[in-house]
Amino acid sequence: SALQLPQPCGRQGDGHVTHLNINRCHMIFGLFSNMAGRSQQLATSCHATKPGMLNVHLVPHTHDDVGWLKTVDQYYYGDRNDIQHAGVQYILDSVVDQLLKNQDRRFIYVEMAFFYRWWKSQSSSVQQTVKQLVNEGRLEFVNGGWCMSDEAATHYSAVIDQMTIGLRFLNETFGAFGRPRVTWHIDPFGHAREHASMFAQMGFDGFFFGRLDYQDRARRMRNKEQELLWRASDSLTPPMADLFTGILPNGYNPPEGFCWDQLCSDPPIRDDPDLEDYNVDDVVGCFLVIANSQSTVYKTNHIIMTMGSDFQYENANLWYKNLDKLIHYVNARQANGNKVNVLYSTPSCYLQELHRANLTWPLKTDDFFPYADDAHDFWTGYFTSRPALKRYERISNSNLQTCNQLEVFGEKAMAVAQHHDAVSGTEKQHVANDYARKLANGWQHCRVLVSNSLAALSGLSAERIYCENLNVSVCPLTESSKKFLQVTFDPETGLISIELPNDVLLKRPRYNASAGNNVESRQPSGAYIFRPNSSTPFIISRTAKTEIIKTSVVQEVRQWFAPWVSQVVRLYADSRALELEWTVGPVPIDDSLGKEVITRLDTSIKTSEYFYTDSNGREVLQRKKDFWPTWNLKQSEPIAGNYYPINSRAYIKDDVDQLTVVTDRSQGGGSIQNGSLEIMLHHRLLHYDFRGVGEPLNEISGIFPDGLVVRGRLLLTLDPLPTAADMHRPLAEGMVLQPLLTFTCLSTHSPNHMHIRTFSGLLAALPPAVHLLTLSQWDEDSVLLRLEHQYQSSESKVSSQAVTVNLQKLFSTLEVLGVAELNLSANQWKDEMKRFDWTPEKGTGHQCCVS
Amino acid sequence: SALQLPQPCGRQGDGHVTHLNINRCHMIFGLFSNMAGRSQQLATSCHATKPGMLNVHLVPHTHDDVGWLKTVDQYYYGDRNDIQHAGVQYILDSVVDQLLKNQDRRFIYVEMAFFYRWWKSQSSSVQQTVKQLVNEGRLEFVNGGWCMSDEAATHYSAVIDQMTIGLRFLNETFGAFGRPRVTWHIDPFGHAREHASMFAQMGFDGFFFGRLDYQDRARRMRNKEQELLWRASDSLTPPMADLFTGILPNGYNPPEGFCWDQLCSDPPIRDDPDLEDYNVDDVVGCFLVIANSQSTVYKTNHIIMTMGSDFQYENANLWYKNLDKLIHYVNARQANGNKVNVLYSTPSCYLQELHRANLTWPLKTDDFFPYADDAHDFWTGYFTSRPALKRYERISNSNLQTCNQLEVFGEKAMAVAQHHDAVSGTEKQHVANDYARKLANGWQHCRVLVSNSLAALSGLSAERIYCENLNVSVCPLTESSKKFLQVTFDPETGLISIELPNDVLLKRPRYNASAGNNVESRQPSGAYIFRPNSSTPFIISRTAKTEIIKTSVVQEVRQWFAPWVSQVVRLYADSRALELEWTVGPVPIDDSLGKEVITRLDTSIKTSEYFYTDSNGREVLQRKKDFWPTWNLKQSEPIAGNYYPINSRAYIKDDVDQLTVVTDRSQGGGSIQNGSLEIMLHHRLLHYDFRGVGEPLNEISGIFPDGLVVRGRLLLTLDPLPTAADMHRPLAEGMVLQPLLTFTCLSTHSPNHMHIRTFSGLLAALPPAVHLLTLSQWDEDSVLLRLEHQYQSSESKVSSQAVTVNLQKLFSTLEVLGVAELNLSANQWKDEMKRFDWTPEKGTGHQCCVS
Repeated sequence: SALQLPQPCGRQGDGHVTHLNINRCHMIFGLFSNMAGRSQQLATSCHATKPGMLNVHLVPHTHDDVGWLKTVDQYYYGDRNDIQHAGVQYILDSVVDQLLKNQDRRFIYVEMAFFYRWWKSQSSSVQQTVKQLVNEGRLEFVNGGWCMSDEAATHYSAVIDQMTIGLRFLNETFGAFGRPRVTWHIDPFGHAREHASMFAQMGFDGFFFGRLDYQDRARRMRNKEQELLWRASDSLTPPMADLFTGILPNGYNPPEGFCWDQLCSDPPIRDDPDLEDYNVDDVVGCFLVIANSQSTVYKTNHIIMTMGSDFQYENANLWYKNLDKLIHYVNARQANGNKVNVLYSTPSCYLQELHRANLTWPLKTDDFFPYADDAHDFWTGYFTSRPALKRYERISNSNLQTCNQLEVFGEKAMAVAQHHDAVSGTEKQHVANDYARKLANGWQHCRVLVSNSLAALSGLSAERIYCENLNVSVCPLTESSKKFLQVTFDPETGLISIELPNDVLLKRPRYNASAGNNVESRQPSGAYIFRPNSSTPFIISRTAKTEIIKTSVVQEVRQWFAPWVSQVVRLYADSRALELEWTVGPVPIDDSLGKEVITRLDTSIKTSEYFYTDSNGREVLQRKKDFWPTWNLKQSEPIAGNYYPINSRAYIKDDVDQLTVVTDRSQGGGSIQNGSLEIMLHHRLLHYDFRGVGEPLNEISGIFPDGLVVRGRLLLTLDPLPTAADMHRPLAEGMVLQPLLTFTCLSTHSPNHMHIRTFSGLLAALPPAVHLLTLSQWDEDSVLLRLEHQYQSSESKVSSQAVTVNLQKLFSTLEVLGVAELNLSANQWKDEMKRFDWTPEKGTGHQCCVS
Repeated sequence: SALQLPQPCGRQGDGHVTHLNINRCHMIFGLFSNMAGRSQQLATSCHATKPGMLNVHLVPHTHDDVGWLKTVDQYYYGDRNDIQHAGVQYILDSVVDQLLKNQDRRFIYVEMAFFYRWWKSQSSSVQQTVKQLVNEGRLEFVNGGWCMSDEAATHYSAVIDQMTIGLRFLNETFGAFGRPRVTWHIDPFGHAREHASMFAQMGFDGFFFGRLDYQDRARRMRNKEQELLWRASDSLTPPMADLFTGILPNGYNPPEGFCWDQLCSDPPIRDDPDLEDYNVDDVVGCFLVIANSQSTVYKTNHIIMTMGSDFQYENANLWYKNLDKLIHYVNARQANGNKVNVLYSTPSCYLQELHRANLTWPLKTDDFFPYADDAHDFWTGYFTSRPALKRYERISNSNLQTCNQLEVFGEKAMAVAQHHDAVSGTEKQHVANDYARKLANGWQHCRVLVSNSLAALSGLSAERIYCENLNVSVCPLTESSKKFLQVTFDPETGLISIELPNDVLLKRPRYNASAGNNVESRQPSGAYIFRPNSSTPFIISRTAKTEIIKTSVVQEVRQWFAPWVSQVVRLYADSRALELEWTVGPVPIDDSLGKEVITRLDTSIKTSEYFYTDSNGREVLQRKKDFWPTWNLKQSEPIAGNYYPINSRAYIKDDVDQLTVVTDRSQGGGSIQNGSLEIMLHHRLLHYDFRGVGEPLNEISGIFPDGLVVRGRLLLTLDPLPTAADMHRPLAEGMVLQPLLTFTCLSTHSPNHMHIRTFSGLLAALPPAVHLLTLSQWDEDSVLLRLEHQYQSSESKVSSQAVTVNLQKLFSTLEVLGVAELNLSANQWKDEMKRFDWTPEKGTGHQCCVS
């Protein structure tokens, strides 16, 4: 047999666990270093604070995008500084040097994609020094994933994988001292509830971020609700998915006037009294005003200041030299009775003080989408930006999950693509190309592994052909070989009617993008921002050219709405789902207008302004038009302000029926009219939206010189309400994890019976509610297994029930010698996962569960 | 008595020297630390080279302007990084850290104005570490003056002072190991022969610079004459003023593609073979091509590369990390037979290898003015830029020389103003203001000192009033008190005729500045570049309004050519020189044209295209129109290409007469027509000339909201050729060092005879040829005295003779207890000043002496 599960040597006592009760949880078998000692270390490594004073926690940090304006390699080495000055190798060199100069100094680091590279190129003496800094809490890891993942366009399975890779590296390199206690998503453009749930299950004590809706922020500042308890699942028993969440005061930047990085130009502290420009009194005075002002919008006598930003600390001396002086001169005023105490700190030291405050915190049960930073600036365009890359990422995830023994390089390419400027589509074109190249490289490795495995299992060593472009019909083997309901179509308009209790009208309209020349706001549509120049979409064509094909397997209607918009509607004999294969592009721009192309389903379902979208492909959240559950929304963008990320599915329903659309990639969509559901498929934009990427989202390539053509699939299923989840859960799972097809030629002389044609690693099919999320080789002696219960509480009478799985009888060729359960990210024994306990304020929290 | 000359304790043996034979030389009395050991240190601190290979000396360096786009303080602290990213405190922090990481690394530092500030803010342990780096030759000082002085607009007395301040700091801080052996003028825009002469007399072994005429450079590359022996005086006996001079290969920048500073964006060395972007082979290949190519234009198997530039090394890790790799990977190829050896080096280590080569070198006796970097890009505008600041610098020097016990602050303000972006006028307006403010501050200190000295000497303690603005008649005391030839004027044209063998026609024309819209070149006139849009000046007015005033003391003619151009012509009864006081401004710009205002003297002197200008106010050099003594000039700018710096005087002559013009500040001028001499007085420009300063030279201030008004004086003297020097030498000396006037009210009740009204520190007037250049307190026990012979060889039959001065009988109130002679910069005993000997090539050198 290919895989052997040995006795786990680190946790002998758990070796007898074989039956697991699965109620939406995750588990692994593994081998671990000692996790003890972390809380003790925190107590001694955090600087003392002063109870009767306002304690200002200065947190030196750098935010290192794992690709954005430059590729990952360019960022690491500091190449192409003409595009953006950034070189992560130098950041880490410099920070380590500067931490050694003053033991009071602190630093946090986030992105393991960079840290790992840097680490492996260091001498053992530098490595030893860094270990010492980590052990003493002077260098603290936060988040610790391979990247800081995007929260709108990522699928939970890939997020768990990328966090696991990063946290495993930290655990194996630094042991317990390297385990992050705080997660840190300072830059992503909106925050998904499923992310908070995953972070809680990974054992994090707290979560800090920087971006939220400007109206929400203003309200939270007034009410001192910028620190809260997020109850991130309505299925898991609290506090299993509870996560303490803090909103940082200045995004992730320092307060105005206090940016001392080489990338900034704020005045340094000039403390030589002999010189003309002595400014210590000015700087201290200004700092005290800012600190005291900030303290009025937070609950405790502790406040945090993020002292750093994008790719800062390349020359850490500039920051630390001035921060040393700031701390010295501000605290010197305590002798005169001033009640402000400044200290170097880290998010976990700050969090520890909040926990010690023993207060109650407002409870939140919804999420932080969509994100708007001003009235006409909704970051909802990136839900759809770069649709081809979004699909390629999803296919790659599927293929790589198929390889149950992922090679390191393949794993890491997937992890990098979870970054919030990668799968989000908000990177520069050349960076998008590099992500795709990295994914392709990962796949090359996986191909070899799959071929070898199949050869071993089947006994057939013939070459295997992988046809990645089956959807564009360029698989030489299948092309040259010799051997994806009653529907009515209006032949004039091309609109589809399906014989079901409701009429489903399929339209393919478009919005024209705002060019930024509007009187209300100069904000144009771009890679991040969606802003149509009118709230009424334009119908591309009221007529369609139509062809109909019927076979015993499939009924297919082909429709052309315009030379650049077509769709194929398919109904398979063995499926209740209607497949819509859409093809959009090149989007015409001869009228000098960017365009955002949507598909819209108009039905007679009585939605009462509600609709539903998934969070990172897992739990589903209720959405309501022009409404936010937590606060009184003032809507300023009727379309863009009602868009939400759709990772795997969206649905509309009434008391009787539910229409679910399953997507093949992350997209943005909304329900603008009652009974209607629209999804943005593709957009091509001619203006830059002022959020840093510096180029319009106008995808052109060698293959598509006139503009990108994108093809994709939507699966529609209309079901009676009680059984809808039983339909869309397996449908969406099948869409995310597709069969990997390989083709091979069999010699006419080789007897077919000589080859094993079927093989299953499982003894029997898993119960329908249980999904084998992860099965991968962990090390020579163990595999990592994650089983999940994929139904939300009460969405299905049958399938939402708890299930027990007997691991001993799970695998066909693997013998289970022992089992040990870990946290979701596999970097801590589950029974040692002791998180801070937090008390919610009474009367807070909103019930917006899916019923 | 105020000053006492004690027995010098460091050099007892020389205490009996009292009679000095002065033949254009300089000397001081002083007290010194031990100067031994330097040559031994060089031999051990320089990296070994390889005789059979091309040795590439990499010289890491930073060029830190002592003021340019930002003020000195802003540059030091890194303030106003929005104007220019530059912070010298961080450069020195970073370089010291990085030198400690690898003992092979080297660095040179130049500007003591910055180093001194940094040094005094360091802990004693850092100071000890830096001393060790200096002792081991890992950190080497080059040049070592307070700044890198401008060479066109500086007066030799101020240059000697600023070099002395910087070198004294180095000597007192680091002893012999801190004494620079190489001087380094990589940025000044043209090079003065007097500077080379001074550097030789200061004991420097070699001189490196970056800028020279583009045609001259091309020729020197072809002929391998970029390294040469400069014989910098035709008065001093060789090798007294011989200076080995090297022209650097890329200005002072690294070769193209090899700039690894944070300010650059060349690709870093990516040497992880696991990554896509591995580029070691490309980088090494490219470096070898550049090194081999460079070796073809130099004489030896050693070449130098300047690895640094303006304000670089703020994050020295970027440079050193990549240089370490470059050295490693290039030298690794020696194993495969490659004959290139790369090493960290310094200019003195490189110079030592050139000296060991024992070759002969081409001899040069002229200078490097004017500097053009392209056919229409003559850097001759800065000779006149900021005429008001140029005058203020000269007055300040005069006043400060008057204070024979200069206070430290006053000294240093003068030193800073010698920088090549200060007195040159090529700094930004706000920086020019800061220079002026620093000069004024220095003067405040000096006032007190002068008042106290005068009170002590006169016995009169009444308040003394200093009227700095006498020339604009705003001295309250003199204004309200109750108690410096037959000339004919044409009343129509205002032109002057002087009854002398020649007619001298005085005109006040202007050039219109090129706006950069010319077909030949887009170069406009600016702070650096002079480029009139026509070779024919415009006459401002052909008529003048005239007033005549005659008294027994002076005959004065006042002339108004235009509302913004006037002049007063004065002839004093006791003087043979005609004074022209010119007032120019606000220069009108209502025609949107910048203007360069000149005065032109048209005479019948038969100049045969020759004219003469001083070098830094001292020796005089012969100039010839459209001609360069060393090479075959192709002239492309008939006006700007014939302009030279005039520091103190210019003259034209024939076999009989010499017309000399003595200036009150540094200016630019030329002789475009036979018999004619023109001087640019002021210019106001509306375009930026693309040399980095980023703003047009358009001086406007609160006092002069419509544009700066400048007033100045020219002294004209027409003499028989044999006695002309006897006339212009004292005249120019008087112009440079003017009496400092103070005023006081004497009470009518106080008997005048109670007060000493005259005092002389000298027993008798010095011989006419001898000038007391410096007399200042050195320390508690000694003074610094410099006597100079101010006549060039053979310019005067009488005055050019050698003179002997008896120091014992020199001073009225000082007793000379001992004398020790030092080099010109007072940082080495003269008898220990052993410079490298160099052999000139036979047949090179040009006789262009003044006869």
